[in-house]
This record gives sequence, C-alpha cells and structure tokens, in this order.
Amino acid sequence: MYSEIKQRVLDANLSLPKYGLVTFTWGNVSEIDRARHIIAIKPSGVAYDDMTIDDIVVVDLDGTIVEGTLNPSSDTKTHLELYKAFPSIGGIVHTHSRHATIWAQAGLDIPALGTTHADYFYGNIPCTRPLTPAEIAGDYEQNTGLVMIETLQQRQIDPVAVPSAIITGHAPFSWGKNADEAVHNAVVLEEVATMALGTRSLNADIMLQQELSDKHYFRKHGKDAYYGQKSK
Amino acid sequence: MYSEIKQRVLDANLSLPKYGLVTFTWGNVSEIDRARHIIAIKPSGVAYDDMTIDDIVVVDLDGTIVEGTLNPSSDTKTHLELYKAFPSIGGIVHTHSRHATIWAQAGLDIPALGTTHADYFYGNIPCTRPLTPAEIAGDYEQNTGLVMIETLQQRQIDPVAVPSAIITGHAPFSWGKNADEAVHNAVVLEEVATMALGTRSLNADIMLQQELSDKHYFRKHGKDAYYGQKSK
Amino acid sequence: MYSEIKQRVLDANLSLPKYGLVTFTWGNVSEIDRARHIIAIKPSGVAYDDMTIDDIVVVDLDGTIVEGTLNPSSDTKTHLELYKAFPSIGGIVHTHSRHATIWAQAGLDIPALGTTHADYFYGNIPCTRPLTPAEIAGDYEQNTGLVMIETLQQRQIDPVAVPSAIITGHAPFSWGKNADEAVHNAVVLEEVATMALGTRSLNADIMLQQELSDKHYFRKHGKDAYYGQKSK
Amino acid sequence: MYSEIKQRVLDANLSLPKYGLVTFTWGNVSEIDRARHIIAIKPSGVAYDDMTIDDIVVVDLDGTIVEGTLNPSSDTKTHLELYKAFPSIGGIVHTHSRHATIWAQAGLDIPALGTTHADYFYGNIPCTRPLTPAEIAGDYEQNTGLVMIETLQQRQIDPVAVPSAIITGHAPFSWGKNADEAVHNAVVLEEVATMALGTRSLNADIMLQQELSDKHYFRKHGKDAYYGQKSK
Repeated sequence: MYSEIKQRVLDANLSLPKYGLVTFTWGNVSEIDRARHIIAIKPSGVAYDDMTIDDIVVVDLDGTIVEGTLNPSSDTKTHLELYKAFPSIGGIVHTHSRHATIWAQAGLDIPALGTTHADYFYGNIPCTRPLTPAEIAGDYEQNTGLVMIETLQQRQIDPVAVPSAIITGHAPFSWGKNADEAVHNAVVLEEVATMALGTRSLNADIMLQQELSDKHYFRKHGKDAYYGQKSK
Repeated sequence: MYSEIKQRVLDANLSLPKYGLVTFTWGNVSEIDRARHIIAIKPSGVAYDDMTIDDIVVVDLDGTIVEGTLNPSSDTKTHLELYKAFPSIGGIVHTHSRHATIWAQAGLDIPALGTTHADYFYGNIPCTRPLTPAEIAGDYEQNTGLVMIETLQQRQIDPVAVPSAIITGHAPFSWGKNADEAVHNAVVLEEVATMALGTRSLNADIMLQQELSDKHYFRKHGKDAYYGQKSK
Repeated sequence: MYSEIKQRVLDANLSLPKYGLVTFTWGNVSEIDRARHIIAIKPSGVAYDDMTIDDIVVVDLDGTIVEGTLNPSSDTKTHLELYKAFPSIGGIVHTHSRHATIWAQAGLDIPALGTTHADYFYGNIPCTRPLTPAEIAGDYEQNTGLVMIETLQQRQIDPVAVPSAIITGHAPFSWGKNADEAVHNAVVLEEVATMALGTRSLNADIMLQQELSDKHYFRKHGKDAYYGQKSK
Repeated sequence: MYSEIKQRVLDANLSLPKYGLVTFTWGNVSEIDRARHIIAIKPSGVAYDDMTIDDIVVVDLDGTIVEGTLNPSSDTKTHLELYKAFPSIGGIVHTHSRHATIWAQAGLDIPALGTTHADYFYGNIPCTRPLTPAEIAGDYEQNTGLVMIETLQQRQIDPVAVPSAIITGHAPFSWGKNADEAVHNAVVLEEVATMALGTRSLNADIMLQQELSDKHYFRKHGKDAYYGQKSK
C-alpha cells in the first residue's frame, strides 16, 4: 500500500553513505504523503548495508506505526513537528555530516560567504538557541523540532528559501520538496559548511554581497529562473 | 559537423567529477574553434552521469545556438568574453572546487608560496574586485567575464602565464590551449589553493622567492624549457 | 582450540584499514576470553594484506604465548594492563588515527562538544599526563597501560561510559565489550576528534551543555535507553 | 642488463599515485646500484598510467644515460648529489605531497610531536635555508641536493635516522635503503606532516619529550630493536 513512498525513502537513506554524509547508522530520511497523512521513515539503529524496503516504517502524524515491524528513527518526532509547521516541505533528512556539525557544535550560523551557498540558501543557515534544561528533560525530540521552527519563524525565514537549519551542540536537518531533494540539499549544506570553515580561517569578517545572494538565488529559483533546462 | 570538438568537450566535462572538482552539475568546460567562430560547451544543469555527446551545445560568439537541443551553460557569456579578450586561450573551465572557492570567498589572491605553484602560475592567482550592484543587476554573466579581464589587464598579467583567476565571493575560472589543458590547470589550481591555505595557517607572511618563481616557471615554459620529453 | 576468538580478532584487525584508521601495520586489536584467561592479539609488524587467522597470537595474562608462531604486538603489555584493571571491557584497539592522535600530540582532552560525542562518550575523552623518564626507561608498554588506568581512576571515569583515552605525545586506545565494539568506538573517536578540531578553530571556549550530554548518553545506554531496536 | 633494478624503480614510482602522494606526473623515485655505479630513475614528465619498465632511465653517477630512450627526471642531479654524499642510502623519492609541502612552503622544520614521528624520524625533519639567487641561477637541481646535504651536515643529522628533508619553498625528499623503503618513508612523512599541522593549530608550543623520541626510535631501529618479527 505504501510501497512507492517506502522505496523512495529507502533510496534516499541509502544515498547518505554514498555521499559520505553518515557514519554507521547515523542519519535518517523521511518523506510525507500529505494526502494520506503518513510519513515513511528509516528504522532506528539499522545498518545501511542490511536495510530493505520492508524495514522502512510508516507512521501517522501522531507517530503511531501504520506499517512496519521495526521502531522508527528516534528522531521521528522532530520530523513530524517540521512537517506540521512547514506545509511547503515534503522530505526531511537528519545527518551528523562533519562540517555542518562543526558549525552546530560551535553554536554559529553558517554564514553566506559565496555564490555556492547563494545558489541554494538565501542568507545564513540559522543555528538554533540552546534548548533549555526543561526542554531537554521533556519531550526532547519534539522540542528539537520546535526550536528549529521557532528559529525560522522569529527570523522570518522561509523554509523553502533556506532548506536547512543547525541545532546548537547537535547537528543539521535539511529538507526539500521530497526525500531526494532533501538529501540533495544536505549534500550542498555539507559542502558550503566546509568552504565556510576554510574561508573563516583566512578572513574573519567577510560576508557575501547581498546583491550576489539575490542574483544567484533568483537565477535558480522563482518565476524568472534561467538555470538548467525548461523541461526539467 | 562539430563531432570532434564536442567529443573533446564532453571528455573534459566528464573528467571534472573524476578529479573531484565538482558536486552534482556544478562546473562546465568549453573549447573554441577560432577558425569556425564557435565554441562547444556543457549544457546547463545536466547530470554528468547522463551526459552524452549529443548534449554538448555549440554556440557562435554571440551565444546563439548553432547545434544542440539543450540550453548551454548559464555561464556561457562569461566563457565568450574570455575567449574574445584572450586570443591565446582555447579552452575554459569553471568549477566551484573547494579550496580555490575558499580563497575566492575570502576575497584574496591565491599567493605564490611554492614551486608547485610556480610550475604552472607565474605569480599570484588574482582575485577580482567585487562586482558593483549595477554589474550584478545588468548582464551578470558577461560582467563576470569582464571583471576577470579587467583584473588581468590592470595587473598586466598574461593569461598564458597565469591560467586562472578567482572571482570575489564566487569561484575560479581556469583556461589553457584547449579544454583538456584547462581542466589540467583547474586540478593544479585546486591543489595549490589547498596547500596555500595550510601554509597560511603556519606562516602568515611568507612569499615565494621571485628567483624560484622564475626558475620553475621557465624550466617548464618558454624557449629554454627542459622539463619533460622533447617529442611531447 | 581458539579459532573463534582468533577469527573475531582477525576480522576486527582487518577492519582497521577499511575504516581508514591505520597506515601500513600501525594499529592492533585484541579480545579477551576471561574464562580461559587468554587474549588473542595481532602479531607485531605484519601487513594487513597478508594476515591470516594463523598469524593471530594467543597469550596468557602474563604475556606468554599460548598459541601462534609470531611475536604478538609490541603493545601487548598495554592491552593486558587494561584488561586486568577494567573487568568490564572485552576488546581493545590501538591506532594512530589521525585526529585522535593530533589531540594526543597536543596533550589535550578531546572535549565533549556535541551530541555525536555524547552518544558514545560521557564527558571529555581524557588525555594522560606525560610518562616520567623513569616510566619510559622502565617497562614502557606496561606503563603506557598504567598511566591510562591512573587517568581514569583519578578522574573517576567509568571505562564503559568513556571507552577511549589518549596518551600525551602518542595516540589513542579504545575499548568495548568485544573486539568489534572496540573498533566501532575507535571509528567514532576519530570522527568526534575531527569535529572537535574544526569546532575549536571556530569557537575556542564552547562546551556541550551537561544536560545534552546526559540526554544523549542515556537515551542510548543504560536501562532507559530507547535508541535502536529492542531485540538488538 | 638492468631489468631488476628498473622493475623495482617502476614499481616504486607506480606506488606513488596509489598512496595519494602525487598529482599528474609530479614526483619521482630512483634506486642506486653502488656496485655498478648507476641509478635507475623515472623519466621526466611521463604519466604514471602509461609508464612501463622500458621508460625507466639508467644513468651513471655523472648523469649520462646508460640505458633508455627518454630523458631522466629533471631532478636527477638532486638524486645523484644525495647518493654521493650519503653512502648509507639506496633509494630516493621526491614528491610534492600536500602536507609535507605545506611545511616546506612555510619554511619550517616538521617538528617531532609524537611517537608516530619518533618511530621513523629521530628529531625534527629539517627544512633547508632558501637557496641564494646565485644557487638558483646556477645548477639549480644540483644545488637543491647540496643544500639538503649542507642542512643535515651542519645540524649533524644522520640520514638514516632522519630519512627526509624539506626544501624551503619547494617540497620534500625522502630516502631509504632502497626505492621501496624510500616510498614507505615518504608515506610516513606525509602522515606526520598532516598530524603536525593539526597539532600546531591546537598547541603552538608543545614538543615531544626527548625520552619518548629515544624510546620509540630505538625500539624499532638499532641493535636492541624489538618491534616486528625477528625473521624480517
């Protein structure tokens, strides 16, 4: 019944080690079917080498298992909060990819320093405030989602224009219109995080011109985009 | 009619992921046929895995498509400006290779710090000034070419002696006598950019002796060169 | 007679180059059979490509060879001291993995800076004091084990909660319930050491919140753990 | 007549790209036959992918070609000077391996910071003074050899105890009892150079204890060595 979305979610999860974004079982990808009110997500703690379509877990928007015999990712509640808050997104990925995590551990936004960044992210990639002790002691995974939502909303960031956030002391989440695009954005996130780290070691103050940020973002996105092939 | 140049341009584009210079569809290579007044160039936004000779686009020096069904690279106008300004070059490559891009994002020349650099680049690899808001709002890709040309001309740099430039906040362009040599120079650029970043973390001030720069450049280039095999 | 433990130790040793943790013959893994009072360990200075199960050496807890024709790892005494001091561990690995070694060479604890660290290590990964000249001139390999034991005991660190230590001027040791888990922890150690190095270049002072350290460690470990599958 | 030494030199040269020490045709390995007063060395500027045993060039100790149709490496005179000055060495390798070259470009010794270093190099890996303009304008490749010899002799360094040197603004040379061991030492050099760069970013002052340097070097080298297998 859910074989197509489960296959896409399986493929997206299996692409994480291929892109060098995960170690062992770290990382997970989900996709939502908004018509059927379910998400398909990676099971918790299963090795990528052994994963098959039958391991993918389908849960409803309360997190109740609809199909599958394994526990869903321990980060499932974080995914669900993001899907509920952001109707424009269809796929989510969480990794501990090295350089995005370095910025998260440093507690700093990944600054917009170049057009590579601007092609995908309109402005800084925001780093959340630390969770409070009460938020950590409470429903931690849910609160991890809520603090990302709070960060984007307070800073008036459109999740489509900035398809990633990093959580202080933790790691990144990325998203997109589906699971595949979420992974694509996670790859770009890691690359721009790597370049930003090197750039800061040479120049502590520089920021990308706002005009370049506008130019590169809007030549790929929105109604006047002219990058790529029309048919795509 | 253009099958040979298209094959060379295809091969050169496919070598970019092999050398680790590109992520996804980023990067493009072109070559010019000065007798026929055309260039062959990568299509915009097509995955390297799927690319065939039929995808390579041939355009005239005004950018009008002469052969091919896809849109040419969105950077085509930048390539065309460089070919028009520099009659000595026959191939051009644009990438966002990691370390060259780090220097571009920092807004700094890649300094000549060793003989590896001197074997290919005679002096610093120049970083352009930022484009003005008007240049960005205008014909951006054309102006990206013009600012590299301005940089080389104002600093009296021969594009054959320094076959790369980096654009502030953006990334590098490299060139050579043909598409293959342009890619070769892009590989070297990335390597010397990497070494320069590490060197600067140990020693903020050192520069290569001018005599070593002369020695290494001229033992490989010019009439008294003695590196390699005569028959080559 | 010892074929099962030797096979596990062989497999664990062969996984070291696969995970990029060793150069040439550097590194060694052992496992203990506490019922039979022996350990199986890599032979000294044998290339991984050539290693077979017959090369694995079985020694008793005094280091006397029980089975095998080759010399055991020159680090055997270090392994033996750790097994004797820490009854809770069943496998040990020593590598010179790059970033863990960088922290050891710097003489600094690997600080707990993120939840990746907290998922496996409860608090800083301790760096030993330097050995005294007398300890180096005496039974060096034994004293290398003793200084790690002293470090954990003085700082009241449970070796199960922090399954690695680094030795000033030298390199890391990791451990686990068996050889396979020891290698798993060595992979994580290298990853968190890499991230910590990058984090410190961006932020010299930040530390992980204690509450996040507690939360991540105890959601994977101990009686209330809820990460992974129950059956595992 | 020289097929055995040529085969060893070919194999050693082909191992350079395998170990990630070279880009394109950069780097060269030689071995000496002291009884026959010849060395075998890589040809200049030939791609590793295309290299066969017939491409290896045999020259006498004046650099005159004895066997082979190609030009020998442009660095042949540097090799010859080292062989003449150091009767204890039998193989030499020159690369521009990334991190060793970074230290050379910075004009700094690679400091002895850990036991990985001490296992192979007894003390700092020396960086030469800059060549004078006259030395560069004169017989540059010969003078490159002479400045390494001067550096070791003035600092009273035994080339067997420190089997590498780096040349200010240029790159490293490594050596050993034959071509294979020279390459082995070049791999270790690159690894310790990488670790030293990271260590210096964490701790600007630390040095390895002299006692640890002694202990690790002499447990692998000299009459009381006990690392590895006796039969080897």
